[in-house]
Amino acid sequence: MRKSIATVSLSGSLPEKLTAVAAAGFDGVEIFENDLIAAPLGPGDIRDRAADLGLTIDLYQPFRDFESTSEKALAGSLRRAERKFEVMEQLGADLLLVCSSTSPDAPEDDDLTAAQLRLLAERAGAHGIRIAYEALAWGRRVNTYDHAWRIVEAADHPALGTCLDSFHILSRGSDPGGIEDIPGEKIFFLQLADAPLMAMDVLQWSRHYRCFPGQGGFDVAGLAARAVRAGYRGPLSLEVFNDVFRQADAGRTAVDAMRSLLSLEESAGIASPPAPVVPSGVAFAELAAADTEPLRALLGALGFARTGRHTGKPVELWEQGEARVLLNAAGADRREGPALAALGLETPDPAAAVRRAESLLAPVLPRRRAPRDAQLDAVAAPDGTELFFCRTGRPGHPDWRTDFTDDPGAPDGGGPGAAHGVTRIDHVALTQPWHHFDEASLFYRSVLGLRPDESMDLADPYGLFRSRAVANSGGTLRIALNVAPGPGGRETRPQHVALATGDIVATARRVRERGGALLPVPGNYYNDLDARYDFPPGDLDTLRELDILYDRDEYGEFYHCYTATVGRVFFELVQRTGGYRGYGAANATVRLAAQHTAELRAGTAR
Amino acid sequence: MRKSIATVSLSGSLPEKLTAVAAAGFDGVEIFENDLIAAPLGPGDIRDRAADLGLTIDLYQPFRDFESTSEKALAGSLRRAERKFEVMEQLGADLLLVCSSTSPDAPEDDDLTAAQLRLLAERAGAHGIRIAYEALAWGRRVNTYDHAWRIVEAADHPALGTCLDSFHILSRGSDPGGIEDIPGEKIFFLQLADAPLMAMDVLQWSRHYRCFPGQGGFDVAGLAARAVRAGYRGPLSLEVFNDVFRQADAGRTAVDAMRSLLSLEESAGIASPPAPVVPSGVAFAELAAADTEPLRALLGALGFARTGRHTGKPVELWEQGEARVLLNAAGADRREGPALAALGLETPDPAAAVRRAESLLAPVLPRRRAPRDAQLDAVAAPDGTELFFCRTGRPGHPDWRTDFTDDPGAPDGGGPGAAHGVTRIDHVALTQPWHHFDEASLFYRSVLGLRPDESMDLADPYGLFRSRAVANSGGTLRIALNVAPGPGGRETRPQHVALATGDIVATARRVRERGGALLPVPGNYYNDLDARYDFPPGDLDTLRELDILYDRDEYGEFYHCYTATVGRVFFELVQRTGGYRGYGAANATVRLAAQHTAELRAGTAR
Repeated sequence: MRKSIATVSLSGSLPEKLTAVAAAGFDGVEIFENDLIAAPLGPGDIRDRAADLGLTIDLYQPFRDFESTSEKALAGSLRRAERKFEVMEQLGADLLLVCSSTSPDAPEDDDLTAAQLRLLAERAGAHGIRIAYEALAWGRRVNTYDHAWRIVEAADHPALGTCLDSFHILSRGSDPGGIEDIPGEKIFFLQLADAPLMAMDVLQWSRHYRCFPGQGGFDVAGLAARAVRAGYRGPLSLEVFNDVFRQADAGRTAVDAMRSLLSLEESAGIASPPAPVVPSGVAFAELAAADTEPLRALLGALGFARTGRHTGKPVELWEQGEARVLLNAAGADRREGPALAALGLETPDPAAAVRRAESLLAPVLPRRRAPRDAQLDAVAAPDGTELFFCRTGRPGHPDWRTDFTDDPGAPDGGGPGAAHGVTRIDHVALTQPWHHFDEASLFYRSVLGLRPDESMDLADPYGLFRSRAVANSGGTLRIALNVAPGPGGRETRPQHVALATGDIVATARRVRERGGALLPVPGNYYNDLDARYDFPPGDLDTLRELDILYDRDEYGEFYHCYTATVGRVFFELVQRTGGYRGYGAANATVRLAAQHTAELRAGTAR
Repeated sequence: MRKSIATVSLSGSLPEKLTAVAAAGFDGVEIFENDLIAAPLGPGDIRDRAADLGLTIDLYQPFRDFESTSEKALAGSLRRAERKFEVMEQLGADLLLVCSSTSPDAPEDDDLTAAQLRLLAERAGAHGIRIAYEALAWGRRVNTYDHAWRIVEAADHPALGTCLDSFHILSRGSDPGGIEDIPGEKIFFLQLADAPLMAMDVLQWSRHYRCFPGQGGFDVAGLAARAVRAGYRGPLSLEVFNDVFRQADAGRTAVDAMRSLLSLEESAGIASPPAPVVPSGVAFAELAAADTEPLRALLGALGFARTGRHTGKPVELWEQGEARVLLNAAGADRREGPALAALGLETPDPAAAVRRAESLLAPVLPRRRAPRDAQLDAVAAPDGTELFFCRTGRPGHPDWRTDFTDDPGAPDGGGPGAAHGVTRIDHVALTQPWHHFDEASLFYRSVLGLRPDESMDLADPYGLFRSRAVANSGGTLRIALNVAPGPGGRETRPQHVALATGDIVATARRVRERGGALLPVPGNYYNDLDARYDFPPGDLDTLRELDILYDRDEYGEFYHCYTATVGRVFFELVQRTGGYRGYGAANATVRLAAQHTAELRAGTAR
């Protein structure tokens, strides 16, 4: 279907917004009146600019507080409407959004409202303009879509139809089922917005927290499907008021918006992009560092062995069980200090995964490989992390490991398959740019077919941060997305790789024996564990001795400990028992404070 | 009264918080359990640290979900409590906050709850510890202070009392009148927090948006006065969960917190600091710039005349009517480009104003003056602006203008008293640091006795910003405090000086004639004005010709226009008719977009 977006959804001046909208591939725009009023170009110039960019102007909005019990106010509104019709003629827009009145003098009488809207439609029709009447969730008398439709039906004028807005409908908990009873040709417009589920004043919720479909908690796709089943054939149009998007780069937000609509069309059964190819696990984590020696020492202490060197690049392969880490001594100038630069994702069909990613506007990265290298396709995640689609060790498929020569220099006691060692990568945690947290969760959900968990607020000593995990259904691929409290210097916080082990006590002990340092956990934490849980004798002493943290949920238990931080990277060892689903969020405050203490001490020691 | 603060109110590690609390002059702290658990020091070390800093530990908190219909859960809670009593003994804390249960298994039976709390108090008493039972606003069964008190009364144990929390009481709209019916000795603790009036889920409101008393919308002082009348003699203690304070400098937040309590004591009639000396107007605005030539040109075009030069510093005095601007060519290194560095405040009693400021912890600035200079006391506002207390032109009082020699070089047509020119400074607008917006409104309210307006959200092309004005009761001193959408580079946005005129059309025309540039306003704005208002013929053309913006409220009308921006400063010309009370907020979006357009054009032209 045609795709449109309201200019209020994006940051910048109106010309900047139009450029971003066109570049993202939209067919049209809704012109938000305040954007036009503040624009340095007149309506005719905007019309030309939009036409040059290949955009239609699908809607002019909003026209507020039209209907009234006061004859004088109504006359004023009609005069106001005539002026707006003139502007719309210059703009080349033929559909005006009229939202239900929020004024105390809004008529209680539906017949009066219908008569007034018929009068407005009559005037509009004389200009070739149509009116789409919408119920605001906080409208004074008319605040549900079915009420707005009853009035439109009663007014019975060809230039009058209704506008459906998913936020106004779903935020009130209205049943969208009735949409299918509205004749499709009388649904003049369909505005789509999602929002996180929040218990707050609906006006504030609407004005500050809307997000693109698929980023919040509403079934926006289901609502759109109903409108299509009713016969709606106009554009799918996004109208999102969001405090973060207002500050973000418009071009990038517009792409995020388009990805949202493409994904919605798939969910609603309107379009069929290439199906998602859900990754089954992490093939490798690639760490980039100009000086890889501290990471080598850390991996050695963790029991990893260097098993290969890349044939053409300064990249080493380290392995233990199914956990694989690449150390890349080139390209580390992208971030300060050692950083998590790329992930290999174990994918049943890499070529299909790339097709899926391309169809959802994920930036496909150019292949930089020597003629001998295995073919490896990659896309860039919203935080810049490169995601490679891999098939490891499957006969008949290219294997990225063939780019590495065997390295006989494995240290004693380490290496793949060692008893009680690391078995695989349990999850990775990536710090997201502040402006692109919602974009990231939609990216992983739509491009990779992962399922997002609920967002959580976690406290570190210097502010709350938000965390949201995405995972495949089996829990064999898990990525935790973290975002700092606000834009600024704190966005470059550490990322980490969590390594699974079947016996964390043995593994942690061996790390210590090999000279690896584990993050010291405060003794007060263990006193609190003792108060909260009744451990068997000795167990708590072991946790305390090895700085292992503990959590449980209704499904099982979680034990985890941390290494020191190198640059922007650290490792976590985790052991899950039963079906524990989380990531130890209950311990995040203690871990972050302990890392802060360690930083302070290191700072003093230097 | 003794003053205390919960460690959760501040940013940083527990030792950092204690240091900040002591430095701000608090007597004690509430230890928030998570701060202790995450601390690198054990309870005994924290006890010693607090004692060294002269702080008592007034409360350990919170102990959650104690009461239960399940015998097994109750036994677990009692075991948990015993562990916490041990921690408290090491801490030297003898009061534990127990908040009402949020669990589905909380007893419905008040007698059972009372019996369980009596049992807990008995156990606590054996350790010399007392229990303060508090109703959470979102408690499952017990969620009002009077309900909590009825249970405490029924339990009737000397080691059991109640804790009152102003947020929990006032957020639910409870009548605090009943506080005076509680025997003072059974009010074991009083926690104070304010919050902006918001319609949202009370748990989220409490956890993210609390602020210090005097910064929100609750009558916290009135509630505290009732507790004191009831006979409460414990500390006034702040417990504030605030996402911004979590990120702000702890030392500064602690001073803000103490200022809040000092102001609350005054409002509650508990203490009598020196009375506020409310300024009656702006004596001068001081602009600092390394190169003052562009500002000279702008002031000249606005009709100002240079009337004096400072006898000892590179400072010029420019005047028109009662509006006075100082141009300071020294000290401009504090900010980038020309900036508003200081305000002279017309004050009936400068010495008393300083005593007031000192009593409320405002940083009094050292006097840097030559022997001949007039005595002029100043304090630093939260954004660093220097506020000088002045009496201008009153016989028998030192006049700051005596530091300036007369300058005969006034340009033609300008100068004081010119017909239809600028008469006075209407208001100034100051951009606040993001972390200190609430601090600023409390500062102006408490230190200067100004009244804050409601906060408003305004849209600029790149994000919402918040604006809150403070003014004296006659409206002769008005300061608009603006804050950027988030921390980072956008905090250094322009500040401005608004100049009053009795005939903005004549004044704007003369500015143009003198070669001054006014900010171009988009033509679309005037088309919208035409749609909204029915102007007499010709009036709108005049506004359009002179780029004058228009607003009205129920009291009167407002006309205003803007100069170009120089560095971080621009001027506004304003004409108020009737009793218009605002600042033209309805036009802020258009003004900000126009300034952005002008910046782009200037950037292209350079």
